[in-house]
Amino acid sequence: MSETGPLGIIAGAGSFPLALARAATAQGRPVFALLLKGIAGPDLEAYPHAWIGIGQFGAMVAQAKKAGCRDLVLIGSLVRPNLWTTVPDLGGLRVLPDIVRLFRGGDDHLLRGIAGIFERHGFRLLGAHEVAPELLMPKGPLGALRPSEADEEDIALARQAIAALGPYDVGQGMVIGSRRIVAVEGAEGTDGMLDRCATMLAAGRLKWPRGSGILVKAPKPEQDRRIDMPAIGPGTVAKAAAAGLKGIAVVAGSTLVVDVQEVIRLADRHGLFVTGVSAGETP
Amino acid sequence: MSETGPLGIIAGAGSFPLALARAATAQGRPVFALLLKGIAGPDLEAYPHAWIGIGQFGAMVAQAKKAGCRDLVLIGSLVRPNLWTTVPDLGGLRVLPDIVRLFRGGDDHLLRGIAGIFERHGFRLLGAHEVAPELLMPKGPLGALRPSEADEEDIALARQAIAALGPYDVGQGMVIGSRRIVAVEGAEGTDGMLDRCATMLAAGRLKWPRGSGILVKAPKPEQDRRIDMPAIGPGTVAKAAAAGLKGIAVVAGSTLVVDVQEVIRLADRHGLFVTGVSAGETP
Repeated sequence: MSETGPLGIIAGAGSFPLALARAATAQGRPVFALLLKGIAGPDLEAYPHAWIGIGQFGAMVAQAKKAGCRDLVLIGSLVRPNLWTTVPDLGGLRVLPDIVRLFRGGDDHLLRGIAGIFERHGFRLLGAHEVAPELLMPKGPLGALRPSEADEEDIALARQAIAALGPYDVGQGMVIGSRRIVAVEGAEGTDGMLDRCATMLAAGRLKWPRGSGILVKAPKPEQDRRIDMPAIGPGTVAKAAAAGLKGIAVVAGSTLVVDVQEVIRLADRHGLFVTGVSAGETP
Repeated sequence: MSETGPLGIIAGAGSFPLALARAATAQGRPVFALLLKGIAGPDLEAYPHAWIGIGQFGAMVAQAKKAGCRDLVLIGSLVRPNLWTTVPDLGGLRVLPDIVRLFRGGDDHLLRGIAGIFERHGFRLLGAHEVAPELLMPKGPLGALRPSEADEEDIALARQAIAALGPYDVGQGMVIGSRRIVAVEGAEGTDGMLDRCATMLAAGRLKWPRGSGILVKAPKPEQDRRIDMPAIGPGTVAKAAAAGLKGIAVVAGSTLVVDVQEVIRLADRHGLFVTGVSAGETP
């Protein structure tokens, strides 16, 4: 299949949608932004765009087709939409029974279903990494520091635990230190989990000295990376530092990194390592 | 082995130590309380007792022997002791290398090791449930409400996920609703996890209507129930209600319930079910 028309970016919150738009533009590919009302920021208003309510599936399809998009990328964090306050349009009403059914499962289930619905409408859903591989975490440390051998053992243990939780559609992220998992990511997200660690550290509930724990993020085994790729950015480093951690480990090639220069600068400043571990190393 | 001497209760925080002391006394068995400084409350000062620092293992052994205790029960929540501020006595110094090694693992590992150390000093370590089975959760609902069939499915799913995490020594508790696990218990404990759910509910991060989620607690597969038994009490019910949950499910016969009448009263008042599921039902 050849690339035809502009890249349609369905944009959620955060800085990834803009990073992707810039990367596509740098490749000479035009962008059309479908900005989710109440979720996306105004960053992409500089590009051709339309604001769309999250339930306005009919409008989304119509706008994307009118703009000549065939390829779509879903990117940015998506606060789980509230079905009780969402007002669907006609297209939305038609897919609503599907969506309601999807909502009975976890995030993976939901997002895979949404991808399927787009594909049945003739779009091709791409992962951000397929469009802009330069946004992906490389293997090895980004900044000046690297994990110790003991850290590598902790990282391996956390990755095993994340894999064990895979079938239950919970937890891309954990915080581990000295062989002990102290936090598992749930609906609060990575930032919420790191805030919790900062609170536990301040309250003396985490008994380790500052600079002891590691944030480990890995895709769940069944995760569709076109629609729910683990991601880190400068905000992740800042929160990990506030939680007193010593490092961040993510899976190389399967994690988006936004603003990599700022990530490196902050990691070096706070004395954290940020490292890409290879997907095949899970024991 | 016959029961000899008073029951030694090594008391951590919370109301379980007192509940156990009362149950033992009601059976006509004298009690000697070893109250952990900075952790235990003053409730047990009405009984023969000694206050002991958590590192004062030598004093603990000496006091327990002097009081004629042969059977010990570790009960109450134990904030993970801070090895950097603990001042050990001579007996504590002798076991310190063991303890430091134990601390490299998770809680299970730590607690099993401590049990072993006591046993090598000639004590018999009992579970609270062996001394006072009336403190255990019975099978079925405690109050007026019971889980629906859909709730039973959620409970089964959460129990599977808890079992999957068993080898990683994290998570006796989860919060689940509509097939989705939204919170996994880490070092913050059950109360901390319920507070987080309340916060997420208030912030619109949990998109369910009030009365939708279930707290599920189950012992980890390898858990030594003499030293780390899941527990609930009126505080658990109050926090579950504040988090907007519809119920609490724990494993019957493997969970301590403190102040069962108050648990029932609060559950009925807040419209929650509190139910004991049988250990054998894990799919």
